[in-house]
Amino acid sequence: MRDPRHDVLFEPIKIGPVETKNRFYQVPHCTGMGWRRPQTLAAMRGVKAEGGWGVVNTEFCSIHPTSDNDYYPYAALWDQDDIRANRLMTDAVHEHDALAGVELWIGGGMVANLGTRLPAYGLRNRPQTDSSVLNPFQARKVDKQDIRDIRRWHRDAALRAGEAGFDIVYVYATHGYLISEFLDPTINTRTDEYGGSLENRVRIVRELIEETREAVGHKAAVATRFSVALNDPETFDAFGLLADLPDLWDLTVPDYGVEMGASRFVKEASFVDSIAAAKSLTSKPVVAVGRFTSPDTMARVIKDGSQDLIGAARPSIADPFLPKKIEEGRSEDIRECIGCNVCYAHDSLGVPIRCTQNPTMGEEWKLGWHPDRAGTSPRKDETVLVVGAGPAGLEAARVLGERGHNVMLAEATRDLGGRVSRESRLPGMAELARVRDWRVGQIEKLDNIEIFRESRMTPQDVLELGVDHVVLATGSTWSTDTVGRHSDTGLRHEAPDMVLGAETVLDGDPFDANHVVIYDDDHYYLGSVMALELRRKGHQVTLVTPAGRPCDWGQYTTEVYSSNAALIEAGVKIVTNKTIVAANPGSARLSCMFSEQESDLACDVIVPLTRRLPVSDLYDGLMAIEDRVKAVGIQSVTRIGDAEAPGIVAAAVHSGYRVAMDLGEDVDIAKKYGRREHTV
Amino acid sequence: MRDPRHDVLFEPIKIGPVETKNRFYQVPHCTGMGWRRPQTLAAMRGVKAEGGWGVVNTEFCSIHPTSDNDYYPYAALWDQDDIRANRLMTDAVHEHDALAGVELWIGGGMVANLGTRLPAYGLRNRPQTDSSVLNPFQARKVDKQDIRDIRRWHRDAALRAGEAGFDIVYVYATHGYLISEFLDPTINTRTDEYGGSLENRVRIVRELIEETREAVGHKAAVATRFSVALNDPETFDAFGLLADLPDLWDLTVPDYGVEMGASRFVKEASFVDSIAAAKSLTSKPVVAVGRFTSPDTMARVIKDGSQDLIGAARPSIADPFLPKKIEEGRSEDIRECIGCNVCYAHDSLGVPIRCTQNPTMGEEWKLGWHPDRAGTSPRKDETVLVVGAGPAGLEAARVLGERGHNVMLAEATRDLGGRVSRESRLPGMAELARVRDWRVGQIEKLDNIEIFRESRMTPQDVLELGVDHVVLATGSTWSTDTVGRHSDTGLRHEAPDMVLGAETVLDGDPFDANHVVIYDDDHYYLGSVMALELRRKGHQVTLVTPAGRPCDWGQYTTEVYSSNAALIEAGVKIVTNKTIVAANPGSARLSCMFSEQESDLACDVIVPLTRRLPVSDLYDGLMAIEDRVKAVGIQSVTRIGDAEAPGIVAAAVHSGYRVAMDLGEDVDIAKKYGRREHTV
Repeated sequence: MRDPRHDVLFEPIKIGPVETKNRFYQVPHCTGMGWRRPQTLAAMRGVKAEGGWGVVNTEFCSIHPTSDNDYYPYAALWDQDDIRANRLMTDAVHEHDALAGVELWIGGGMVANLGTRLPAYGLRNRPQTDSSVLNPFQARKVDKQDIRDIRRWHRDAALRAGEAGFDIVYVYATHGYLISEFLDPTINTRTDEYGGSLENRVRIVRELIEETREAVGHKAAVATRFSVALNDPETFDAFGLLADLPDLWDLTVPDYGVEMGASRFVKEASFVDSIAAAKSLTSKPVVAVGRFTSPDTMARVIKDGSQDLIGAARPSIADPFLPKKIEEGRSEDIRECIGCNVCYAHDSLGVPIRCTQNPTMGEEWKLGWHPDRAGTSPRKDETVLVVGAGPAGLEAARVLGERGHNVMLAEATRDLGGRVSRESRLPGMAELARVRDWRVGQIEKLDNIEIFRESRMTPQDVLELGVDHVVLATGSTWSTDTVGRHSDTGLRHEAPDMVLGAETVLDGDPFDANHVVIYDDDHYYLGSVMALELRRKGHQVTLVTPAGRPCDWGQYTTEVYSSNAALIEAGVKIVTNKTIVAANPGSARLSCMFSEQESDLACDVIVPLTRRLPVSDLYDGLMAIEDRVKAVGIQSVTRIGDAEAPGIVAAAVHSGYRVAMDLGEDVDIAKKYGRREHTV
Repeated sequence: MRDPRHDVLFEPIKIGPVETKNRFYQVPHCTGMGWRRPQTLAAMRGVKAEGGWGVVNTEFCSIHPTSDNDYYPYAALWDQDDIRANRLMTDAVHEHDALAGVELWIGGGMVANLGTRLPAYGLRNRPQTDSSVLNPFQARKVDKQDIRDIRRWHRDAALRAGEAGFDIVYVYATHGYLISEFLDPTINTRTDEYGGSLENRVRIVRELIEETREAVGHKAAVATRFSVALNDPETFDAFGLLADLPDLWDLTVPDYGVEMGASRFVKEASFVDSIAAAKSLTSKPVVAVGRFTSPDTMARVIKDGSQDLIGAARPSIADPFLPKKIEEGRSEDIRECIGCNVCYAHDSLGVPIRCTQNPTMGEEWKLGWHPDRAGTSPRKDETVLVVGAGPAGLEAARVLGERGHNVMLAEATRDLGGRVSRESRLPGMAELARVRDWRVGQIEKLDNIEIFRESRMTPQDVLELGVDHVVLATGSTWSTDTVGRHSDTGLRHEAPDMVLGAETVLDGDPFDANHVVIYDDDHYYLGSVMALELRRKGHQVTLVTPAGRPCDWGQYTTEVYSSNAALIEAGVKIVTNKTIVAANPGSARLSCMFSEQESDLACDVIVPLTRRLPVSDLYDGLMAIEDRVKAVGIQSVTRIGDAEAPGIVAAAVHSGYRVAMDLGEDVDIAKKYGRREHTV
């Protein structure tokens, strides 16, 4: 059943005093749930254990109120309340014969402690370095008494971790947090035994490993998360000094933009060489991530000795059942991470993570959804027409089929995938096509879903089909006006031929214009990748944004820096903090966001990316004959995805899943939000 | 006892079926607590009622899961759980004989529903218009069935508000949320009975007022929050159509930047003329805000018929006991709001509000602090030396004195106030001096606090004083290097005389340089107001920021747009998305944040604002002789405020309050964070 080439992934391995049953290791990853949503969190982690991950870790877990990451919902082990909350998670993980790990965390100069309002303990006098919010707070620069306190707090937290039932306890020595500040010679200018020589700079790591072992080592493994990079030999020297000290190394690279890079810029297994070099220096097991989704790649990096365990954050979010699927020999069912980082973005926004590929992520407790079982519909004998085979329509059809309905999926064009197919052809966006490919693959396995291509539906067509339900996933198109966040009315003047619809660019149709201005009031990736595409085709391109930076929302997905570097590298001109208020012959009229001072930008054509309009002809047509719709026995007509409310692809997929779970049920929408975690 | 001129503020007034005992009306204002922190919230609102506010309202309160404002912690009345949580607040308010009001809220196109993941219901096809996060989500454009659903949800929420014990229920028709979209002719292009004529556009407001009255009008007043502006006559026409429909008008102006303007740009009672014009059109009572802190101004606007009740959000945060103080004839004790908007900033960051003037705000439940009673210290016989009379030192001395300690406050200079005195001399910053003035005024009333000016302390001086405790509030100074968020090491080359310390500019010392470059890696107001000050003095000024906009953190305080408009108006040149990496003779070397491409900016001098260094001589000196410190009987030496960890003024004041509450207690810092609201 299982491909024998993958057997190596299912060999048990000892980690200090514990043993994991296989090589699938969910590394600590943020969730946006933390101590504030422990039930949401426990259910989500439990589903991963159920899906076969041998080890399931928490997100970064604060040891003490001086490491508070509000507004991000982080994990915490400050007191007995937290032990009770974390016990929910360890129980859920243990129920499926997996190990539970906890990443003890000291924020250092990265945090502002907006919750406790205590000063953060950092190594330096300098402002907090949170990634997206420039909070005007500096840390308290630690003295030796502070270091003694921190060590004591860490040990106490390790003891609480033991009480909470964790099998693996981390010393967290990377990602810019306090411990990694000690390691860095450009930062650590201490003149005492914690600074200067490399031996001194790794001292705190050594102490914490030893003290954690003293506290819980009799029953839990001590892991250390640490960074190495081939282009920084000292990281290996530091590693060498500690090589056999912990029970497990969780290794990564110092550049978080590589470790956590969006797929536009970073691909699978991108830093395996650095990991392999470190592994050769230690006798202890090594785990590392690399956005692994291919079982062949996973087996290879273990067989060739690069690492011992397959670390995963994003792939385990996209498919919590990835290990089970490999075990059962159905690797083709793996729902591969597309590296869009929408998971990370939502944690960065202070809300639970979600996933473009896995609409059930974060909804396990709240809505009772499950990533590998949609269940059987109570009304499965009722037939459904789904119109539109974009991400929402494909997901709706897939899940409706899984739930037992006979489904017709009508697509107006020859191509499946809708916007994900079109956008996946733009520079760096290829993995977006996985959203389509996985769903099409699953649909093809079900004989109760029929796909009709080149089948543009009219209201009359719908009436004649004899279905019980109609789901409209007709998508949206970019508007050719500039109504949007920064204008209620659009351009005050529009010279003929000065405005080109974004749809034309997305279709890849050639057009006759040298200098193209993209008016990016969308602020996510599309304006930037479209600019790159137009440069590739030889146009002169200027991107005008009312924000301070293009791809502003990309600050949450980690892609904003790489994205803007790519624009500059490609020769795209960037104009920030400006709106476009008029299109005159041969120029765009710009207005300053602050002063409203106006200026002209010579160009041949303006492509607005300011809003999308749902494609609603069919819905409007059906609503106009609502009585006839009812008369032929159609019980429900529901818009989903961009056809209801244009958003990100993750929202469209989620919407498709939701309609399949709720089809035709006369639930008040108020019940659809699911459970919340209340404090009283 | 009470000044008779203020009697009018204590006249009861009928509001529909209820009556309020006075004219002090805490309008709905956000808190960062909402449904997630109901105990924190109830305690805070209860303290306001205790302080004499006749009416205390909630923040905006969602009627339904389609109006979810995650990650902001908003109030909610979706279900029975929410009724239970809101009942905590109404009970706390009723306990002090005040009325409790609730502002029912429909988010519309302003929200992204990041929690429920349901599409928002908006009037338009356009992206969410949240103020600081450009979320790539559009609303579902409402049809007539949706409007019927919304009305039903609103009525159901009003019924739940009644169950929760509210005395006033709002229809919320401003601030850009759904209902105000209906009113705006540039937005509302509907062709049915909800669009077109003014009568049609106000229809939804009329319906909601009527339906709310039907639901709860027998026991609760129906208020309507609405905007009028003298420069937009149609707002008065709309108001006129509804003038006598609700029981109370809560009026404001459409420009939120005026209503909620930072004191840099907007002063007390700034739009009273618009309110008065509306009041003349209605027989119903009118409440309006205006950041009123002067009882004389309050009495005047009521006596002259401009409004009936004194609305307050920020002044009630800065001093929850403002009404009591006026009632007791101690108006000079009012702790006046400084209009810094740090309250709003923290709500915008998704954490509980706090206040520069009132360190107890948000800590009522968490730490048991009270804005008008610090209590008596269990060790009040012990004496305290406080060194430094900036915001932290003044607050520490004040609260220590109130708690019964004999306090010596030693200030090195002739002037009290530290940074708030210096910064208050910069353009627009005058109200910051209130932080000093209120504290000095309170200290002067206590005979157990002695202030020593021009008393720079040495370790030897401290030893000789015979005190039991030493509190060091020695502040911080701006570093002259450029180490900070964007550099670990500072400039790679520094030509002599090219770098000028920010302290020189703050001191107002003249210097010989035409073109000044401010390197603003601080991102709050100081770089910008310093630029304005230097322009005023005739310098050519360029502000270089690694962010996309100067004053980036001002996005949370609402001042970013006004601040940047002021820079442009004053002729300050702005360079964004650049760091300064070297100071060459006659130029700054800039580096692009994305590409690291370098360029030169000709200038005469560079003023870095990148980090501050705590002034630690005295602390270091005392630590060097720790044994002697103990030997003379000094039990504790504690750094507070910027001397411990440089931050905003609110953090310094909070730190001063905290040390006075915890003085000399051997509490583990872990206990100082106080209570959290747990869900399990």
